[in-house]
Amino acid sequence: MKKKIVVLGGGTGNFVILRGLKKYDLELSAIVSMADNGGSTGILRDDLGVLPPGDVRQCLVALSDSSRLMRSLMNYRFENGNLGGHSFGNLLLSALEKVTGSFEKAVEEVGRILFIKGKVIPVTLNQVHLKMILNNRKILEGEDEVYLSQEIEGGYKSIFLEPYPKVNPKVIDEIMNADLVVLGPGGLYTSLIPILLVEGVSDALSKTDAKTVFVANLMNRRGQTTGYKVSDNLKELLRFLPDDIFDYIIVNRKKPPKALIERYKDEGDLVENDMKKDSRVIESDLLGQLAKVSQKDLIRRNLIRHDSKKLAKEIIKIVDNL
Amino acid sequence: MKKKIVVLGGGTGNFVILRGLKKYDLELSAIVSMADNGGSTGILRDDLGVLPPGDVRQCLVALSDSSRLMRSLMNYRFENGNLGGHSFGNLLLSALEKVTGSFEKAVEEVGRILFIKGKVIPVTLNQVHLKMILNNRKILEGEDEVYLSQEIEGGYKSIFLEPYPKVNPKVIDEIMNADLVVLGPGGLYTSLIPILLVEGVSDALSKTDAKTVFVANLMNRRGQTTGYKVSDNLKELLRFLPDDIFDYIIVNRKKPPKALIERYKDEGDLVENDMKKDSRVIESDLLGQLAKVSQKDLIRRNLIRHDSKKLAKEIIKIVDNL
Repeated sequence: MKKKIVVLGGGTGNFVILRGLKKYDLELSAIVSMADNGGSTGILRDDLGVLPPGDVRQCLVALSDSSRLMRSLMNYRFENGNLGGHSFGNLLLSALEKVTGSFEKAVEEVGRILFIKGKVIPVTLNQVHLKMILNNRKILEGEDEVYLSQEIEGGYKSIFLEPYPKVNPKVIDEIMNADLVVLGPGGLYTSLIPILLVEGVSDALSKTDAKTVFVANLMNRRGQTTGYKVSDNLKELLRFLPDDIFDYIIVNRKKPPKALIERYKDEGDLVENDMKKDSRVIESDLLGQLAKVSQKDLIRRNLIRHDSKKLAKEIIKIVDNL
Repeated sequence: MKKKIVVLGGGTGNFVILRGLKKYDLELSAIVSMADNGGSTGILRDDLGVLPPGDVRQCLVALSDSSRLMRSLMNYRFENGNLGGHSFGNLLLSALEKVTGSFEKAVEEVGRILFIKGKVIPVTLNQVHLKMILNNRKILEGEDEVYLSQEIEGGYKSIFLEPYPKVNPKVIDEIMNADLVVLGPGGLYTSLIPILLVEGVSDALSKTDAKTVFVANLMNRRGQTTGYKVSDNLKELLRFLPDDIFDYIIVNRKKPPKALIERYKDEGDLVENDMKKDSRVIESDLLGQLAKVSQKDLIRRNLIRHDSKKLAKEIIKIVDNL
């Protein structure tokens, strides 16, 4: 029987891991954060009252077995006029939500159009916004404000979804029936924690027989997790999870070229592995392939990102030993 | 061998006839006017520099064998915000034109997504605008201005596409290889003539061995063809076509209820058949089914429109005798 893998997240990190796992013979589900309110997604939420399509779109494209053209179409962004900045895939999901009257049906329908391998499941079907109250009493409203803030490392009093959402019941089923649950990589405050804030998710994670993996980020986010090591990232997540939740922690070993780290300086610093001796930690070269170009082009053409194939391989090793 | 039917037009008239013919075992092609510049289509042309998607979209939906949901989606119009008024199908065609770099490829791809039966072929792939110089020296720029004008019946000096377009070569092939070519129903100045204005179309129509049918409109357009009878409509078209072009002229016989005619008064009057004795004329009840409702609801709930099934039946009778 196929092993059932459930991936929790949102945004680019989720895309990378799903794209890699898609190539294996697994039963794959992506549980997606629904707190995005920036850019095209934010405008659609405001103007049309739809649920946020952006993160769901990325997961659908990651799991798609359709033509390259269809995938390009889904990610295409209009460049000019009133449509400027809107991603076509977001418009598709929002139009389908309007036509069917249900975001879930819209997601299913796009899944069919894109021949996706696996399932994409919104963590909640309620309209929610992320809120964060900082120690300096500033209130960050919406995931976009949280994303841009550089004051989070000064500490926060609380982070929550408003209004407090009901979990999509399918999410609980997926977690309870999983063989492996993967959390991360992804923005702590913008992708991972917003999923754990939904009622019942953390509880299901503690009750399920599934093994649980945390994939540590490569980079910290400046002003949010500056200088955080793997253990700090983990500690932060464990504010929202039972202490003994993770069976495995996957960490990158390969350092990116100095010039590239330098270029990222304003965005954030590398996450250092201070847990090498922890038996749960799997250390491996997970760094995305760098284009072979001149030193000058190196920093222009490359990103510090997980390699989807390398990351998938490490996860599959775990799966094979379950 | 299947008979090859080529339908020329644009807009609602084209939709009705294609929807009816689609149910028969034919090789069906729709050649579509590319002069539309109103509404959602006009905004997309202006903002993105794309070719006009609106009329093509209607033909694709008419020929679609996909689910009702997909057809609803294609015709769905966003209601609020910057997207307000845009039809989803138009956005799909425009995004695909941008992603593929070709409007033709975009049309083919949507055809695949919608499982269309037949082909949809833009009459030209050049960016053109309809222009009309009236006898009173007023210049109407763009199909939208022509559509709204009530001064056309005062006469016009010229009607043309600007810049003068090259015909899509596939259009000539389609006409030359057709068994039957159908022109109309549709707005004389906004759907039918804009196709005949493209270089080579009229020439191909005179050279082809295909039989040619004109489907007369049910209604005149006020201020444009007010009081026109069938022969007047025909005469107007023949300014752009060889005199002996039509082998058949299909005309509706059934009068709509008076209350409905009354309601249409501001838009236009009924086209009277003054060619009953012409051997080319086929007269039949072609009126769209009226919903059985109270007299008050009759005019609110019904439109004066061709019935796609009845119209297709008359065309099939011709096809069967070819």
